[in-house]
Amino acid sequence: MSETPLLVRDVPEEALLARIFPLLPTAPTTLVGPGDDCAVVAAPDGRYVVSTDVLVEDRHFRRRWSSGYDVGWRAAVQNLADVVSMGARPAALVVSLVMPGDLPVDWVTGLARGLADACTPLGAAVVGGDLSGGDQVVVAVTVHGDLEGRAPVLRSGARPGDVVALAGSLGRSAAGLALLDAGRGHVDDALVAAYLRPDPPLAAGPAAADAGATAMMDVSDGLLRDAGRIARASGAVLDLAPATLGADRDRLRAAAGALAGHAGAAGDAGDAPGAGAAEDRAEGWVLSGGEDHALLATFPAHATLPAGFRAIGVVRPADDDGAGVRLDGAVPHRAPGWDHFRA
Amino acid sequence: MSETPLLVRDVPEEALLARIFPLLPTAPTTLVGPGDDCAVVAAPDGRYVVSTDVLVEDRHFRRRWSSGYDVGWRAAVQNLADVVSMGARPAALVVSLVMPGDLPVDWVTGLARGLADACTPLGAAVVGGDLSGGDQVVVAVTVHGDLEGRAPVLRSGARPGDVVALAGSLGRSAAGLALLDAGRGHVDDALVAAYLRPDPPLAAGPAAADAGATAMMDVSDGLLRDAGRIARASGAVLDLAPATLGADRDRLRAAAGALAGHAGAAGDAGDAPGAGAAEDRAEGWVLSGGEDHALLATFPAHATLPAGFRAIGVVRPADDDGAGVRLDGAVPHRAPGWDHFRA
Repeated sequence: MSETPLLVRDVPEEALLARIFPLLPTAPTTLVGPGDDCAVVAAPDGRYVVSTDVLVEDRHFRRRWSSGYDVGWRAAVQNLADVVSMGARPAALVVSLVMPGDLPVDWVTGLARGLADACTPLGAAVVGGDLSGGDQVVVAVTVHGDLEGRAPVLRSGARPGDVVALAGSLGRSAAGLALLDAGRGHVDDALVAAYLRPDPPLAAGPAAADAGATAMMDVSDGLLRDAGRIARASGAVLDLAPATLGADRDRLRAAAGALAGHAGAAGDAGDAPGAGAAEDRAEGWVLSGGEDHALLATFPAHATLPAGFRAIGVVRPADDDGAGVRLDGAVPHRAPGWDHFRA
Repeated sequence: MSETPLLVRDVPEEALLARIFPLLPTAPTTLVGPGDDCAVVAAPDGRYVVSTDVLVEDRHFRRRWSSGYDVGWRAAVQNLADVVSMGARPAALVVSLVMPGDLPVDWVTGLARGLADACTPLGAAVVGGDLSGGDQVVVAVTVHGDLEGRAPVLRSGARPGDVVALAGSLGRSAAGLALLDAGRGHVDDALVAAYLRPDPPLAAGPAAADAGATAMMDVSDGLLRDAGRIARASGAVLDLAPATLGADRDRLRAAAGALAGHAGAAGDAGDAPGAGAAEDRAEGWVLSGGEDHALLATFPAHATLPAGFRAIGVVRPADDDGAGVRLDGAVPHRAPGWDHFRA
């Protein structure tokens, strides 16, 4: 006999909040925490960075694959990655949660725990939020950070001669999603975990700013697409060396091999059989798979790269093909990314 | 022949953003605006206040009643009200927008215009956002404000002897919603407008802080419920005088009369016929109707109330019934509010 779980519609809103509040991460920079009209947060630098990112059920996650904990973790990490990509230290988050009445209360408290576990190592607090009913789960997080006196690292600062460098992995999240999508999650637990709970080296962001990074962003929509954004914002070419991107090549090729015969998902080369197809699919994950949230940055040619970063290319002046990404000097033929409103 | 409107699924995300960006309000406190991983906002006070509030289609608005402009306006105002209720000046908003692919592009640009028209008089900018597909429209706004050296005005500061005062109207939004719900919006355009585009006196918030307000919040869930929150947070009784709440009594009674025979909605006394029932329904809107976002504050007994505020009661010590709201000294018998996850 399985017990019926307690659902959010069975609990008054204030009782639900009373369960959530004690689970949320706190920080000494929170001057007034949750429970009033606003929180009050210290901004000793005299500025704050702010970004917002939303996760929607059946678009960004499926409840049959992702627990509340997983979704809380991912919602925090994808937002925290935006803060560290500016060279700032994450300080405070607010969270709006839309949920159907039949969502288990345990799913919601799991989400709070996932948020807390992702935020606590960085010293970030959840300082406020809002709850609403709705047809599908939506988690909208806004994150704030402290530049601690640093100049913000924008996407537009890459200069010809700079080194392009990366901290974190590429393609693992997309591979994990493809495995889950094909019902083959058992093939590689670590890739599935990379999709469910991405764990990029977030502390490398402020370190990159201290090391003189000229441009930075986190890779959330795929390397080609996001490198293209830095390139266009900077009016330059980011010429990447694919041979430097192979850290997970064998593992990704094995996962792709296990998917032979399955139709591809986002950033995925399709279902042609054979070793060449697996190689191609794995390369697609590396170049176009999103949501690993690796940090992509450019540094002056002679800068010492901070721990965790490896060189993956160079910045060149815009050429006859304009500003954009090149792979070993050539315009990539692969589709660069995906769009939220289409199949 | 009516032309098919352009839908969001027909437009690439970056093209949609290119239509939205020029419509968004700007402010000199925005150091880095939309388009990078984060915005950067000035916090000259060394602190910022932050709050988040979400609007969900078919919970907080219906697209057959509310245009994109209306929803943008309301999403901004309900968030701005949280900032001014702390005694802060609104400075910066970020907006996450979830939308089905068949939403017209004009609806989205209307939403941006509504946000802008609500923010511009207060000097607040929209500095960032996120777009996603989803099954229903969700607008999650996070708002930030500058205390300009003021102490934040919390809910917990009301002291026995203080005056309870209100700036703005009560019950008009609930009446407008009830009219729309009954298909009788034509009965009173001004009440319908109060629901679609609430326009509370937001500038009164920082003025109240300057005048020494001891506690403040905006009335978003109904006067009884929200006054109860100040009372409990302060460990006191807020004793309100219903006779002082009658500014719109005739208008609300007329609207209630036009609804005779219609079942009631939130904060609504039901459908018994006759003048007594209309009176009772109008009183329900005043005491329990939400979303007018009037400012409810307490002031020291001898403070001069700032422009726009009128006295509606006094703060007394908690009594045998504990901390809470009283109406002319008596515990209210009316249900105090409503819950987001139940019918």
